[in-house]
Amino acid sequence: MTTDIQQTPTAEEEMLNWGRLLMDGLPFADLIAARDRDPSVSWFEFWMKRADDYEAMGDTALEQGHSLTAGYWFWVGSMAAQYAQFLWFDERRPRGQRRKAELYHRAAPLLDPPAIRIDLPIDDTVIIGYLRLPKNAQGPVPCAVLLGGLESTKEESFMFENLLLERGVATFTFDGPGQGEMFEDVALAGDYDRYTSRVVDHLVTQSELVASDRIGVLGRSLGGHYALRAAAMDDRFVACVSWGGFVQMDDWNFEYPMTKLSWKYVTKSPDLETARLRVKDAIDVRPVLNGLKCPTYIMHGAKDETPITEVDLVKEFAVNADLVIDIEPEGDHCCHNLGPAPRLRMADWLVDQLTQ
Amino acid sequence: MTTDIQQTPTAEEEMLNWGRLLMDGLPFADLIAARDRDPSVSWFEFWMKRADDYEAMGDTALEQGHSLTAGYWFWVGSMAAQYAQFLWFDERRPRGQRRKAELYHRAAPLLDPPAIRIDLPIDDTVIIGYLRLPKNAQGPVPCAVLLGGLESTKEESFMFENLLLERGVATFTFDGPGQGEMFEDVALAGDYDRYTSRVVDHLVTQSELVASDRIGVLGRSLGGHYALRAAAMDDRFVACVSWGGFVQMDDWNFEYPMTKLSWKYVTKSPDLETARLRVKDAIDVRPVLNGLKCPTYIMHGAKDETPITEVDLVKEFAVNADLVIDIEPEGDHCCHNLGPAPRLRMADWLVDQLTQ
Repeated sequence: MTTDIQQTPTAEEEMLNWGRLLMDGLPFADLIAARDRDPSVSWFEFWMKRADDYEAMGDTALEQGHSLTAGYWFWVGSMAAQYAQFLWFDERRPRGQRRKAELYHRAAPLLDPPAIRIDLPIDDTVIIGYLRLPKNAQGPVPCAVLLGGLESTKEESFMFENLLLERGVATFTFDGPGQGEMFEDVALAGDYDRYTSRVVDHLVTQSELVASDRIGVLGRSLGGHYALRAAAMDDRFVACVSWGGFVQMDDWNFEYPMTKLSWKYVTKSPDLETARLRVKDAIDVRPVLNGLKCPTYIMHGAKDETPITEVDLVKEFAVNADLVIDIEPEGDHCCHNLGPAPRLRMADWLVDQLTQ
Repeated sequence: MTTDIQQTPTAEEEMLNWGRLLMDGLPFADLIAARDRDPSVSWFEFWMKRADDYEAMGDTALEQGHSLTAGYWFWVGSMAAQYAQFLWFDERRPRGQRRKAELYHRAAPLLDPPAIRIDLPIDDTVIIGYLRLPKNAQGPVPCAVLLGGLESTKEESFMFENLLLERGVATFTFDGPGQGEMFEDVALAGDYDRYTSRVVDHLVTQSELVASDRIGVLGRSLGGHYALRAAAMDDRFVACVSWGGFVQMDDWNFEYPMTKLSWKYVTKSPDLETARLRVKDAIDVRPVLNGLKCPTYIMHGAKDETPITEVDLVKEFAVNADLVIDIEPEGDHCCHNLGPAPRLRMADWLVDQLTQ
């Protein structure tokens, strides 16, 4: 087995973080196969083909009555489609996004515990979300709202959801502005908190399933920014985790070129300069951070390209919140290179906040 | 460090199958760190240190009331100790083995579902085994007895156990002759079936937990050989899976040099020639294979160094069993390079046999 997995970065590989893909559930065998693929097969084609293969395996499993296995293959297929498209911003992007959502919708009822689809109207569109309840939940349980980021969506938190579910906490995931199934209707904007609050509006009506006074929020990367905004603007959130998040985007020079293209795409900007200005305007939680009053956990890798000075800004502006700052000296963006430890710390902390 | 096994390829490269280690649950981050470790730190030292680190993390988690996380760290620590020692046959071997068992014993009650320790006296020694029951099992459930191989032991089937447990089948794992905690008392011998039958003797007394007419056996590598023997010699096994197994060892020239040293160690032979003869004598299921009458699944990788002709021998000698032959053209030993698909096929097949 070749162990030299760190190759000279190419444009396509710039955003590829093996630690992230593996911790989010992609099989190692697929990463090796993608790396060693026939050069005539593009990265996009390779992974879209994997998505097709996995769907076929899921269908076979269904025919054989193996629903748990079927759900797993549909879900892995969904992840394959995600990582097919996430490097491009042309027609491959919507194709891969649609395929990802389609396969996840097939997986959802077969997961264990299942993901229950919940559509929540807002303005002229609909939030497509999923609620998962811990197995054998007795009565109302705490719930964590999980937020995707710049190119991550509701489908990718499955592995993290499982950590919370095993610990007795329900999970709710959805696509907000600029994300997944909402992107076509709503581009990235500065009011993500309206969508998280819309989710809470729903959760508090589910009094037989969810304990309305035990709702938390956790977001990764840009989702970590959204989590700060959500909790600062809605005090029904009683705990907040910002996982590799940030406070503002006044200077985006630290971003990889690919990431700038991703900002341009999700803001539906005609050019990078417009994108920069829109992002600077939309992504700034400083004006509201004094509204953050619930216990808040900040996880940040010191080697993240997102500057660690963002943690200082949280401390400067979130003057009314009890902060737990967890800085990993060797951590990259979201500490994806560090394996399960950072995830377990966040999960246990959040569960403690919501259950004790 | 002995130099004769440190030539190119190194011992690590020769025996190290990243697919196996990852599918069995070691964090990718650890494999990267091991590969990139300071050259002054030996492979053994690196992993034994990881075992210590994980135990400390488990203790911290316990203090904080995070029992699920504690169980996970103790178990990963146990795996770190396993992969510390498995390349050597000097004093490192018993040190690593003891550490592996010690950490697993700590993990066992904290796993979800827990692993219940069961000691079964046999001859002048004791089989140390673990029973895991599916969560929320109602009444007696089917049970699969899982067998380790040449250097794998009861601690390493955790991930596979979980596949069966999620599908409603209990699991029983133990160390037999030449393995783990039994090695000191009993070297590898030709009567592994006495130990599997001793386990069944116990399971059939547990009528409130285990359905005595729904007991299967699955073994990996040498354990796949043992599984054939176990089911051929004891018709209380109603299904059998041989995962990368083999029938006989008349010619061991296909084995890697490290593997020959491993055979020498587990047979407690003074030299390789003695080991070869003892293995040839002990590992031969041809004389009893006509006793195999239950449905049997044979999983083999066509690129396994263990010859695929072993599958032909199963067909030739297991004349009374319904065989399902599953050959993966690109599979290495136990198809460790192929990710989750082979494991899920075996798990679903075994569950079907035991539940339908």
